[in-house]
Amino acid sequence: MKIRKAVITAAGEYHSNLPLQSVVDRDGVPGTALRRTLDEVVDAGIDEIAIIVRPGQSAPYLSAAGSHASRLVFFEQDNPRGYGDAILRANDFVGDEAFLHLVSDHLYVSRDEKSCAAQLCEVAKQHECSVSAIQATRENEIIYFGTVGGTPVAQQDNLYEVATVVEKPTPTVAEQELVVAGQRAGYYLCLFGMHVLTPTVLKLLQKNLDSATADQSVDLSTSLAQLAQTERYLAFEVDGSRHNISYKYGLLLAQLAISLGGIDRDLVLTELVALLAEK
Amino acid sequence: MKIRKAVITAAGEYHSNLPLQSVVDRDGVPGTALRRTLDEVVDAGIDEIAIIVRPGQSAPYLSAAGSHASRLVFFEQDNPRGYGDAILRANDFVGDEAFLHLVSDHLYVSRDEKSCAAQLCEVAKQHECSVSAIQATRENEIIYFGTVGGTPVAQQDNLYEVATVVEKPTPTVAEQELVVAGQRAGYYLCLFGMHVLTPTVLKLLQKNLDSATADQSVDLSTSLAQLAQTERYLAFEVDGSRHNISYKYGLLLAQLAISLGGIDRDLVLTELVALLAEK
Repeated sequence: MKIRKAVITAAGEYHSNLPLQSVVDRDGVPGTALRRTLDEVVDAGIDEIAIIVRPGQSAPYLSAAGSHASRLVFFEQDNPRGYGDAILRANDFVGDEAFLHLVSDHLYVSRDEKSCAAQLCEVAKQHECSVSAIQATRENEIIYFGTVGGTPVAQQDNLYEVATVVEKPTPTVAEQELVVAGQRAGYYLCLFGMHVLTPTVLKLLQKNLDSATADQSVDLSTSLAQLAQTERYLAFEVDGSRHNISYKYGLLLAQLAISLGGIDRDLVLTELVALLAEK
Repeated sequence: MKIRKAVITAAGEYHSNLPLQSVVDRDGVPGTALRRTLDEVVDAGIDEIAIIVRPGQSAPYLSAAGSHASRLVFFEQDNPRGYGDAILRANDFVGDEAFLHLVSDHLYVSRDEKSCAAQLCEVAKQHECSVSAIQATRENEIIYFGTVGGTPVAQQDNLYEVATVVEKPTPTVAEQELVVAGQRAGYYLCLFGMHVLTPTVLKLLQKNLDSATADQSVDLSTSLAQLAQTERYLAFEVDGSRHNISYKYGLLLAQLAISLGGIDRDLVLTELVALLAEK
């Protein structure tokens, strides 16, 4: 399996400014959140990147992309019908290949030499199927995330065969349908906003869009649940963390996590302590 | 003395995106750095605000201004000739009145109920002259700031009669010309990026611009040093701190300072500790 293309969704109604926010990377180099997301993708060996944007947003994104600008193509999501519809706008770009998909309102901090996206692509190439990145998440937070149910893959650390995906489950639904063997009590496997997807997902999304009424939105989780019934579909717990920067302090915490894991760790810790020590 | 107008400079070559960055205010409300600067100004009782921008920047600034948009007028600094030239673009807007001036690449965190700008305006109204906000700053950082020399005003806390202003002095120059009685050893009084200025300053800036060659830039500190020779000019140490958000971790530290002094203090501290505790 080759993964040569990536699709980044950035057309959410309240999220279109997030990729333009300033973020200093782990090497201490100032840039933007978009620039960091693109670094993540390029680190995974991917060179052709589609970004789904709100109409008129491609110009600021191009200038926020830095040296990655030449790798980008933009698709404008006019008449938006949800997250699934946004991904479908890249249908022709993707063609008949597996592709990496990331959301633009998360920032990822790897605990490994490889980026989170690179770790995920490696697993997908090895198993030649769709793989969603996941993170073990406490019960009280699962109402914010798509959550997977399934079973651990024998003799493979952090890898799960997905049986179902439920979008933002209640704790009761989670307890009934989404408990995964080996997880700590009260923890569930939540989507990380990062997937390697086969073209089957696009076909499922298109089918769901076609059968929805014109005023209905189409999400991704429904198609992922159908994918699990259609072909082999895995979930992989990457060695890293994600920061949802649409949360109001998400950018603050993401920047701290990046800096505390980077070359300016001592500098930032020193300034942090000085700040905390102020009256 | 009435202070009815404010002039914000935002036309610096590398700084024009800074006011557009996301910042959550002390009440936990998401907004932009510009929004916060405008809150600061409006808290000081000022309702007419000019922003000097790079050509073409007024549209994104307008949308970053939130509910303050109707208070703004924009002046584009074409053919820029420095910071002093930027302020001069608001000459006709200001007319023959004292005005508040702020830079757009600093964020201010007051330790008082009143905003830093409100504290400063109060002092200026009381003394009816130009007043620059200042912060006691350690020797090793004075090369980044305009620094004032002068003498404490008798029986007035935190208030100084300015004798001179030197732009980004070396420690040697500072030791020879800028030591102020009552300061801790190695500390100097540095400009805070916030001033109440009389129209005399605009006349001095114009004179300096006229006598400069076409390729020379005009700064503010030179005119402030001349102001000190022309009329009464004070410096006031406000009860608060400034964060230079053009420094790469400036926005991170500003956001932390704002949040730790606001209603989400416990939430942010908790998340901070959780982050620091992570492997």
